Amino acid sequence: MDGRNRYNPGMRAHVYVTLKTTVLDAQGQTIANALRRLHHPQVESVRQGKYFVLTLADSLTGDAAKAEVERIANEVLTNPVIEEYTYRLEE
Amino acid sequence: MDGRNRYNPGMRAHVYVTLKTTVLDAQGQTIANALRRLHHPQVESVRQGKYFVLTLADSLTGDAAKAEVERIANEVLTNPVIEEYTYRLEE
Repeated sequence: MDGRNRYNPGMRAHVYVTLKTTVLDAQGQTIANALRRLHHPQVESVRQGKYFVLTLADSLTGDAAKAEVERIANEVLTNPVIEEYTYRLEE
Repeated sequence: MDGRNRYNPGMRAHVYVTLKTTVLDAQGQTIANALRRLHHPQVESVRQGKYFVLTLADSLTGDAAKAEVERIANEVLTNPVIEEYTYRLEE
């Protein structure tokens, strides 16, 4: 096992889940209002989402990793009726 | 006002808040366990965090935008006892 694997096993997938832009984000609006009250008037709007970091098994790389992360994001992490996701793989 | 400003006013700040690595992430562990049950054994661990997209006023750019986003992330979006954040500015 080389240094990379010892200290940094497997890829990491960063998944960002947000409400679709057509869905009212009450939580984000509440934060935006709070920021105005707290003297941060230069923030025009806030959207809140969820952020997941998945550590993948060493054996999962390349296109297989992509496919697996997309399956997980679609089926488990996102409610496709109101949410959408983006992701980024980190070697 | 040029096209860019008309359709894309102000910068966007993407702020990612996660529990410090020394803090137990029960929610992330629950998701990791669920993924194993749901036949995704190649995910070794999951950390869950929060994701915020702030739309900034047109007038806020460059270093001033950075400073403002760091202040907001430190003072409002993050609990510095147990959480840490990273951010990314999008022009």
